[in-house]
Amino acid sequence: MRQTEELRVLGLEKGVQLHAAGSCLVKLGRTHVLCAASLEERVPGWMKGKGTGWLTAEYGMLPAATNTRSDREAARGKQQGRTVEIQRLIGRSLRQAVDLSALGERTLTVDCDVLNADGGTRCAAITGAWVAVALALRAQGLGSALVRQVAAVSVGIVESGEGRRGLVLDLEYAEDHQAAVDCNLVAARPTLGGELELVEFQGTGEGRAFSRAEAAGLLDLGLAGCAALMDAQEAALG
Amino acid sequence: MRQTEELRVLGLEKGVQLHAAGSCLVKLGRTHVLCAASLEERVPGWMKGKGTGWLTAEYGMLPAATNTRSDREAARGKQQGRTVEIQRLIGRSLRQAVDLSALGERTLTVDCDVLNADGGTRCAAITGAWVAVALALRAQGLGSALVRQVAAVSVGIVESGEGRRGLVLDLEYAEDHQAAVDCNLVAARPTLGGELELVEFQGTGEGRAFSRAEAAGLLDLGLAGCAALMDAQEAALG
Amino acid sequence: MRQTEELRVLGLEKGVQLHAAGSCLVKLGRTHVLCAASLEERVPGWMKGKGTGWLTAEYGMLPAATNTRSDREAARGKQQGRTVEIQRLIGRSLRQAVDLSALGERTLTVDCDVLNADGGTRCAAITGAWVAVALALRAQGLGSALVRQVAAVSVGIVESGEGRRGLVLDLEYAEDHQAAVDCNLVAARPTLGGELELVEFQGTGEGRAFSRAEAAGLLDLGLAGCAALMDAQEAALG
Amino acid sequence: MRQTEELRVLGLEKGVQLHAAGSCLVKLGRTHVLCAASLEERVPGWMKGKGTGWLTAEYGMLPAATNTRSDREAARGKQQGRTVEIQRLIGRSLRQAVDLSALGERTLTVDCDVLNADGGTRCAAITGAWVAVALALRAQGLGSALVRQVAAVSVGIVESGEGRRGLVLDLEYAEDHQAAVDCNLVAARPTLGGELELVEFQGTGEGRAFSRAEAAGLLDLGLAGCAALMDAQEAALG
Amino acid sequence: MRQTEELRVLGLEKGVQLHAAGSCLVKLGRTHVLCAASLEERVPGWMKGKGTGWLTAEYGMLPAATNTRSDREAARGKQQGRTVEIQRLIGRSLRQAVDLSALGERTLTVDCDVLNADGGTRCAAITGAWVAVALALRAQGLGSALVRQVAAVSVGIVESGEGRRGLVLDLEYAEDHQAAVDCNLVAARPTLGGELELVEFQGTGEGRAFSRAEAAGLLDLGLAGCAALMDAQEAALG
Amino acid sequence: MRQTEELRVLGLEKGVQLHAAGSCLVKLGRTHVLCAASLEERVPGWMKGKGTGWLTAEYGMLPAATNTRSDREAARGKQQGRTVEIQRLIGRSLRQAVDLSALGERTLTVDCDVLNADGGTRCAAITGAWVAVALALRAQGLGSALVRQVAAVSVGIVESGEGRRGLVLDLEYAEDHQAAVDCNLVAARPTLGGELELVEFQGTGEGRAFSRAEAAGLLDLGLAGCAALMDAQEAALG
Repeated sequence: MRQTEELRVLGLEKGVQLHAAGSCLVKLGRTHVLCAASLEERVPGWMKGKGTGWLTAEYGMLPAATNTRSDREAARGKQQGRTVEIQRLIGRSLRQAVDLSALGERTLTVDCDVLNADGGTRCAAITGAWVAVALALRAQGLGSALVRQVAAVSVGIVESGEGRRGLVLDLEYAEDHQAAVDCNLVAARPTLGGELELVEFQGTGEGRAFSRAEAAGLLDLGLAGCAALMDAQEAALG
Repeated sequence: MRQTEELRVLGLEKGVQLHAAGSCLVKLGRTHVLCAASLEERVPGWMKGKGTGWLTAEYGMLPAATNTRSDREAARGKQQGRTVEIQRLIGRSLRQAVDLSALGERTLTVDCDVLNADGGTRCAAITGAWVAVALALRAQGLGSALVRQVAAVSVGIVESGEGRRGLVLDLEYAEDHQAAVDCNLVAARPTLGGELELVEFQGTGEGRAFSRAEAAGLLDLGLAGCAALMDAQEAALG
Repeated sequence: MRQTEELRVLGLEKGVQLHAAGSCLVKLGRTHVLCAASLEERVPGWMKGKGTGWLTAEYGMLPAATNTRSDREAARGKQQGRTVEIQRLIGRSLRQAVDLSALGERTLTVDCDVLNADGGTRCAAITGAWVAVALALRAQGLGSALVRQVAAVSVGIVESGEGRRGLVLDLEYAEDHQAAVDCNLVAARPTLGGELELVEFQGTGEGRAFSRAEAAGLLDLGLAGCAALMDAQEAALG
Repeated sequence: MRQTEELRVLGLEKGVQLHAAGSCLVKLGRTHVLCAASLEERVPGWMKGKGTGWLTAEYGMLPAATNTRSDREAARGKQQGRTVEIQRLIGRSLRQAVDLSALGERTLTVDCDVLNADGGTRCAAITGAWVAVALALRAQGLGSALVRQVAAVSVGIVESGEGRRGLVLDLEYAEDHQAAVDCNLVAARPTLGGELELVEFQGTGEGRAFSRAEAAGLLDLGLAGCAALMDAQEAALG
Repeated sequence: MRQTEELRVLGLEKGVQLHAAGSCLVKLGRTHVLCAASLEERVPGWMKGKGTGWLTAEYGMLPAATNTRSDREAARGKQQGRTVEIQRLIGRSLRQAVDLSALGERTLTVDCDVLNADGGTRCAAITGAWVAVALALRAQGLGSALVRQVAAVSVGIVESGEGRRGLVLDLEYAEDHQAAVDCNLVAARPTLGGELELVEFQGTGEGRAFSRAEAAGLLDLGLAGCAALMDAQEAALG
Repeated sequence: MRQTEELRVLGLEKGVQLHAAGSCLVKLGRTHVLCAASLEERVPGWMKGKGTGWLTAEYGMLPAATNTRSDREAARGKQQGRTVEIQRLIGRSLRQAVDLSALGERTLTVDCDVLNADGGTRCAAITGAWVAVALALRAQGLGSALVRQVAAVSVGIVESGEGRRGLVLDLEYAEDHQAAVDCNLVAARPTLGGELELVEFQGTGEGRAFSRAEAAGLLDLGLAGCAALMDAQEAALG
């Protein structure tokens, strides 16, 4: 059994989407997310004429990715609140990775589509999408625009259920379901070297509120997890 | 000028919406949010037959509440991602205040509508909505279902601009705009007495990433702000 | 008890929305509508290049404004037919107040949001919005574009129920519900002095048809009510 | 040239829609509207169990019915405000024709689709739809549920342009465009005999406000026009 | 009774829509479709600057056109999949009739609205719309842009039910319902003379799959039907 | 170079979606489609109480699957006409594979999501989805409900461009773009042995019409291609 501070088995497969400027299929245990980065020669209306670029993200889940088939959002004609929230988080996180002014008036669009969901899809998406973005920028001769490395992980406090207990890293769906507190932590470090810092921390008491001391523990464990993920990202890029 | 650890002037006016089971117009400086709690004899489909209740929240902003008039979401036919994210946060936070099983198969719907926006509307909404919920439960003879007091505040790190600098509590719009790091913190404490704990902490590096030590400072300042807000809530309820 | 030809207690509170060019919270008994007028430097596409301005109106009702909570239109993704009808009426009526050619290529957008509903919200909205428009034009140095004063009132024929009977002015919700005939009348008079005239008259037989003579009575009573409202508007503007 | 108080040439062709319980193609000059009445064995949710019926109306315009092709509402995914307003008027008007309690829990749905538009389509729709409803009720053995005859006509005040001037009955599109005041009047009379009364009167000052005396003239002319239309309806039914 | 290889009684009435550049009411037995062609001085965004034109089609069905009233798509806010499929077929088919480069940057919009449905509405729409397009082009002095004549018919294999059996031409609704195989065939021939060819063939096994030999029979019968329809189109145009 | 009557390299990878009852990643050259079949304990409303089951299909394309990134349909809030058409075809085709009455009141939902698009995605989807359906039925002990094998292929007539010319099987995107005639053919054969028959044939003249003889050639080539695909399906199932 995994230790409480251990990540699931991680895979980062490059080039799965043949047309994308950069793509990466990230597998974290049974959570599989296909990430692609596309570079388009346009910026949103409100950015025109500023000479700088933009990065935006979209997230989706294949209907059969979940234990019980979920509705197709395109068929329902509406993205769920959860989807909107996740894709805003992914975009915000990856904008910390890129020097947008070095892009010129171009938009990097990141697509994250979950093929199999077993907890932690938004964090896996961020970790995999960073690899796709790095590949896309290099392929376009814009490698110097990549100023920070970004990765994300979930941490939580699990009190009931079998298996791992207490402060737990990288929760599977079953663990997430039993967690009293559930957090997502996004971290960054400069590509030219430097300290790991926080880009985003979202902690939610699902079953109960949590103490100031527990918050500290969650931050520390999450940062450690992100450091390990970043080593894997570097290895994948070669 | 306000000190960096000081809240804006706070007002909690009860009963502004005549038909609602409970209502409260919260004013935090120039941010004014009208909060109402309605109790309906139904639960969402997926909860039927469980004998327990539900609490959900909706958030809106009057078009003229902002410096430049914003689009009316009802006319555009779609709630913005920001709106969806905020109302999910409000709902999640206030569900910590209520023992849902004590409601029976009923739904408390919380409406938060911003009349004037000057930063921190989602936190003001949570603080005011808790008063509306408390009033509604008491009015319906369900006062014992109110198990925790909940309040929220924004904290941030401001580096540029005039005025307050560094770790700052309860940001106005102008400060929020200049903040490098922007956080929302929701806290709870048992109505029967006990420690202040965290319900939700969302910290985002807007302009830069932030260190582990800065995260700790943000948590501490936010908890202090929530404690002050809770005293005001108690005073308002009498 | 009010006499059949008597208005409810009227209040016109200015400046409630801090960012709007002009705003007015109109209270007519227990009907409270927040009205704001915003001036934007654009006109609809079909008006571009004509050198003249436009006025448009939007109407909404807070979910908790009614006796039983109503759905939030932004959440349903669609404005109701009733809403569309009302905001078209408000816009049409207030366009009679303004010399659009004196605005230049600018749009006055009027927002009317009902905080509490107890009958006659569309008429109260028109009466309050006229004050907001007047304030906005003066604040922008466009006071001479205000060429007519506009106010609106409901009139009806009540046959059943307790209280006021027969031809009745300014119906509350309970009266409106019992009315056999229900009318809304919008009147105007030149700001430089002149006769009160009709801008719009909408009479509907809800429970029964009504005679030519009854139509005459409704017109006369409605015009008298509008005259009283206009005096109050003038007093509010000072 | 038509006199100011004269209707256009009227035709009422029955049975054009082969499947409908009742149908009527109404032609008023160059305005042609296809009206159908369908009887369905259901009522809206809020009417269930009351033992009474309902009547509702829908209105549409073929894209090629207007001088310049208009958008297809089904393709745009939204009915225009004007459409919603018109179909609400048609429904309200025809509910005065039918004793809904005599229908049982059934819904009469009236469809009015404009094949050619030359002004006055909503009034023509009401006049033609009444014939369709009468035919449908008779065909279903529910003739006694038809308690009133309903017809509608437009009246206006035309001040500019060539041709008819002053108070004018049954405006063509070109006249409607030049009208300073534009009204729609719906009238009813009991099928068993009795006085003509008003069901709805909507008068709008488009170019200017109008006086109390002008309102009286518009009412009188409109009632006279409706009387003539009702004679034609009776003749068509035979 | 009709023979298996016989068309229903056909009528092609011109000029029913007064404002359209060209219009034709096609009647094939009890299937009646009103077709209009409008010429607009614009092309879709992706065609701008190419100096060539476009032809697009929209299809709708009046709610009362079917045996049981169907929902109005404009009211539901969405066109059905069936509708979208049909209007794409109509557009594709009629683009074979017109030399788009001879139109200049203009769009021919074809509207096909079913007044009465008794099977084969999409084929009737194509046959009638071709007449409307021909009339519109001639009226605009663009007759030379009409390079091919286009018509369509349904064919099927009927195995059960009374009446016509086996390979059957031009199915009524009742026959279509009983058909094991259901096909739509669109054919074209040059306006300056030449062979009849296929524009589109869609054969679907509804109740069972069909053999290669049956496919051949369906093609032959459909082509024969189209030849007969083309003779009628020519006669109608005169 | 491939011969004109040759398929692209085909792969059928089973079990890629971990939660689905059956899944298959079909690769036909550079066209990759992920297909899943889910069995749900419900049927559409109109089928309830009939004791028989249903099969429905949904189709989507990941935004980065195409050469230029395409819009995400869930974000646009609407499925394109092309998508609707394709998923109707997939559903219709696979319903020929299953004895729906043997399912009981259950629905098989087939999801086909294109990961990489290089022509022929709808045909690849049908071929792969049949494998997913077969796996799902076997896994649920419903293997006897699988009564026919179904596969699909594209065929066309290519006249310009380099490479394969004339009647061509299994078109890549570049070939499809140059094709004058473009067809999709779906074939079936009984799982217990029997002749290959047609389920659906859709031939469209994109650049020109096509002759009766060419139609015959397209049918023959398509049937041969389907036979080869079916052998591969059988091998994949083992």
